[in-house]
Amino acid sequence: MIYEEPVTVPFFLGTKTGALSLATLVNVMLLGSEHQLDQLGAGIAALSQFGAGWVITQYHLDVTRMPRVEEPLTVGTEASAYNKLMTYREYWVKDASGNTLATMSGAWVMMDLTTRKLIPIIEAFAEKVQAVKTTKVRRYPRLPKLTEWQRQVPYRVRYFDIDGNGHVNNTHYFEWLEDALGAEFLDAHRLASVDIKYAREVAYGSTVQSAVTVAGLTTHHQISTGADVNAEAMLTWREA
Amino acid sequence: MIYEEPVTVPFFLGTKTGALSLATLVNVMLLGSEHQLDQLGAGIAALSQFGAGWVITQYHLDVTRMPRVEEPLTVGTEASAYNKLMTYREYWVKDASGNTLATMSGAWVMMDLTTRKLIPIIEAFAEKVQAVKTTKVRRYPRLPKLTEWQRQVPYRVRYFDIDGNGHVNNTHYFEWLEDALGAEFLDAHRLASVDIKYAREVAYGSTVQSAVTVAGLTTHHQISTGADVNAEAMLTWREA
Repeated sequence: MIYEEPVTVPFFLGTKTGALSLATLVNVMLLGSEHQLDQLGAGIAALSQFGAGWVITQYHLDVTRMPRVEEPLTVGTEASAYNKLMTYREYWVKDASGNTLATMSGAWVMMDLTTRKLIPIIEAFAEKVQAVKTTKVRRYPRLPKLTEWQRQVPYRVRYFDIDGNGHVNNTHYFEWLEDALGAEFLDAHRLASVDIKYAREVAYGSTVQSAVTVAGLTTHHQISTGADVNAEAMLTWREA
Repeated sequence: MIYEEPVTVPFFLGTKTGALSLATLVNVMLLGSEHQLDQLGAGIAALSQFGAGWVITQYHLDVTRMPRVEEPLTVGTEASAYNKLMTYREYWVKDASGNTLATMSGAWVMMDLTTRKLIPIIEAFAEKVQAVKTTKVRRYPRLPKLTEWQRQVPYRVRYFDIDGNGHVNNTHYFEWLEDALGAEFLDAHRLASVDIKYAREVAYGSTVQSAVTVAGLTTHHQISTGADVNAEAMLTWREA
């Protein structure tokens, strides 16, 4: 079941060029799915009555052109398929002429809110969004294992990084990934693709290390807290 | 000339209770004035053709009830008066029933973008928004001078704190003010009023100290970089 809605991103969420940051792009895509789930009674509130919550495990994202603030956009989403443990959801952003500016695919699991352990997908929720049941497990690109990093930048988790679930919202990781690249790199490049794999939640009050290694137009990233890896990512770029 | 527009703040800008942060509240209020100025040809782009830019010097803000994300709101603004050096602008947010949730008053000056010095208000711009010329200088509440602080928290200025003018947007200061109070205080209190006085720009790459002293339901704040004070503020609160 496809859901689309018009969105205009306010100017105050723009970068210095008036484009969206990666974090805002993902936030805007997720806005569509939040609204679809709420309308179908399958949102965070409904799921929490079953003692369960959605947890993202992996995103793959492609950017043709980064959307701009104050630009009329359409965001769309569809829960395309699910298997025993995963629900796959597609997201897209189009401009006023119908050109697709960015697409994203996400693999979501369900967690028991009390034990914090994964549980099988509650089928009633997958059915509400007319996701197709499959036995297939989707393969996302593998991330190379790096052991050395060119740079590490610390980020203290702030109060407003915590969302309504009491967790660091998964989109804040994108701010840590991008910011650690620094102004010189970010001014000279435009984002082309993202692969991110989430491993472990980050708690309020902790300080994460955002490690980065630049290899030409590919950047490798790791978010960690002490010895724990919270997320790994690989981004590709175009020259600006 | 009064300008109003409907706004709904997307869920991803909500705090953990689903309310707006102070920074988002001010951003939403400023959205109305940006749109008014753009429609009248008096916005940032038009003013920059005169080699000039708007600079905020002071805000006073009162909150009756903090707006919530996904709530239908109306934001309004009016450039109420100007004198030789200052333009005064009012801002407000109403809920769907027309109740005023928050009001703000701001004192803006004009800066020569090359010399970075203050210049007299260019009257053509004040006239475009039908501001009333006055010789009166508005008095904002004085902020007490504190010399000792209970706590100081460092914040490194991030790439995405820089706006289209190449500066740290003035609303980011509010994140540093509020976050430095910590979760225990912020969970237990609701914002009632804000007075902030801006003194000096913050540059990308610098680390500011956000100093705070809590005195009952009043909190005193200072944002500084080395020996330079960038802003001073006083916030008042209600028990949550």
